[in-house]
Amino acid sequence: LVLLEKKLITNLAGNNAIIEKIMGYIIHAGGKRLRPAVSFLFAKALNNGCLSSSHFSLGQALEMIHTATLMHDDVIDEAETRRGLLTVGKKWGDKTAIISGDYLLARSLMQLAGLKNNSVVKIFATAMNDVCEGEIQQNSQNGLISFDEYIEKSKRKTAALFAAGTQSAAVLTPNVNNLTVKAAGEYALNFGIAFQIVDDVLNFTSDKDETGKPAVVDFKNGIITAPVLFAIQEYEERGDLTLKNLVIKQSENEDEFNNCLNLILNSSGIQKAKELAFYYADLAKKSLDVIEDSIYKEALSDLTAYIIERRC
Amino acid sequence: LVLLEKKLITNLAGNNAIIEKIMGYIIHAGGKRLRPAVSFLFAKALNNGCLSSSHFSLGQALEMIHTATLMHDDVIDEAETRRGLLTVGKKWGDKTAIISGDYLLARSLMQLAGLKNNSVVKIFATAMNDVCEGEIQQNSQNGLISFDEYIEKSKRKTAALFAAGTQSAAVLTPNVNNLTVKAAGEYALNFGIAFQIVDDVLNFTSDKDETGKPAVVDFKNGIITAPVLFAIQEYEERGDLTLKNLVIKQSENEDEFNNCLNLILNSSGIQKAKELAFYYADLAKKSLDVIEDSIYKEALSDLTAYIIERRC
Repeated sequence: LVLLEKKLITNLAGNNAIIEKIMGYIIHAGGKRLRPAVSFLFAKALNNGCLSSSHFSLGQALEMIHTATLMHDDVIDEAETRRGLLTVGKKWGDKTAIISGDYLLARSLMQLAGLKNNSVVKIFATAMNDVCEGEIQQNSQNGLISFDEYIEKSKRKTAALFAAGTQSAAVLTPNVNNLTVKAAGEYALNFGIAFQIVDDVLNFTSDKDETGKPAVVDFKNGIITAPVLFAIQEYEERGDLTLKNLVIKQSENEDEFNNCLNLILNSSGIQKAKELAFYYADLAKKSLDVIEDSIYKEALSDLTAYIIERRC
Repeated sequence: LVLLEKKLITNLAGNNAIIEKIMGYIIHAGGKRLRPAVSFLFAKALNNGCLSSSHFSLGQALEMIHTATLMHDDVIDEAETRRGLLTVGKKWGDKTAIISGDYLLARSLMQLAGLKNNSVVKIFATAMNDVCEGEIQQNSQNGLISFDEYIEKSKRKTAALFAAGTQSAAVLTPNVNNLTVKAAGEYALNFGIAFQIVDDVLNFTSDKDETGKPAVVDFKNGIITAPVLFAIQEYEERGDLTLKNLVIKQSENEDEFNNCLNLILNSSGIQKAKELAFYYADLAKKSLDVIEDSIYKEALSDLTAYIIERRC
């Protein structure tokens, strides 16, 4: 990951002082680099612990695309900070943030073109398509959604890019069979869904504002996630439709919003959402069965626990 | 182009009702489809008048990328209308416009992946990179720029995508040698620069507001183009630095802005910019010398005149 960091800085510099400045700012802002990390671990698990230069190109493409989506998300959400720093939009203006996101997408395509592997281009095209459709689906949802819709959206919006990373890592490793490529995709899809559910739980359990209340930015923006769906289900089973009706109503009234929030926090919605994340993390772990034992496989297995324990 | 239109609608529909609606809206809004048209003419000139399915995928990718840049530009410029209709941002919100642009980029990558030709992926990656760098260059410019910087920006921002279209059309045609691929690129680069200069002239000669004055949106936004550069040069040669100093000052004062505008309109800046466009159109025409004669080559030659005459 240290080498990846260096390559990212070199390959994002561009021919323009302002681009170099912005890209340096973003890369130095850090991030978990979780997509490249998962992809690298898979590559190592399949390739006797070795990473090829192709895997490094892949890792860069993953992080560039992920960062591009964050930059566009921040413009969309009018976010003030990201990773403790001002967002690019707030520092250089929304114009620059939108184009810089596009620039990152173009640079990621340069990395993919360098791989000279058409399967990988197709995997990434499909993933980018999924990410955009997931985001559009989320934005166009009004009121209540079903559990199926929620999982489908999480799969597209979040898990698809993880899966592009592991599938491509497998495709770019010599002598890897189709069953292994499939397992790589399944691991990452389930891992990504678990990761998204945990994110949605964190929206209710962390990010407290000055009054000590959770910020619940997503819920405020009308995005319905696992904790809300479980809470609605619980009250409904008791014959209490208050929460359901309030959520459908999408009232902007502060009292009603606080009422909603209290009903959710007083239910077992958050606990059940955590259990759902465990379920998908477990599915991810099971996908590793077809992979030969190694310290890298062990790390992939441990990572499923890490994303849940660390963050909830 | 009629067939292209149908393919665009089919291949942009997506898995979501709102995506289908937005994409239908954009495609039906029309447009000159100039990038696919130039690419198709080149393919036909090199391929005995035949277009392969690969050329149609290429045409779609070109139009999708071009439309994506327009959608992001419109958000950046807070544009109200495009092609006589409300912009996607004004109709569905900026959120949707940004993601829809990203979605178009993802769909274009799907088309490129379908070509299974790594050279084409690389050509497009480079072009997208150029387009973004050109746009960032334009946005980060403060005050005066040189003629060289202006041409370089026009090449990147506008001509690069035209060139990706003709070069890829050549690469995707059997038995085409490198010299022809090079000529295809040169034609489109010079064509694209001429096209951009004409656009910049139109900013001063058309788009009049209610008072009959030209809207000069770009100039108002501090974008320095050929007519301005020629006007500054003319006054400077006479020892008059008024315009130069006003442009460097970038005053937002209305009287000073009107003063600038009158100085430009009273100079030969617009005429000289037209002549510069002619010069690049002529270079484009000359690049066709290595191509065998055909009605398609003739059309490519005529097109260089068309973009200038039609619009100035």
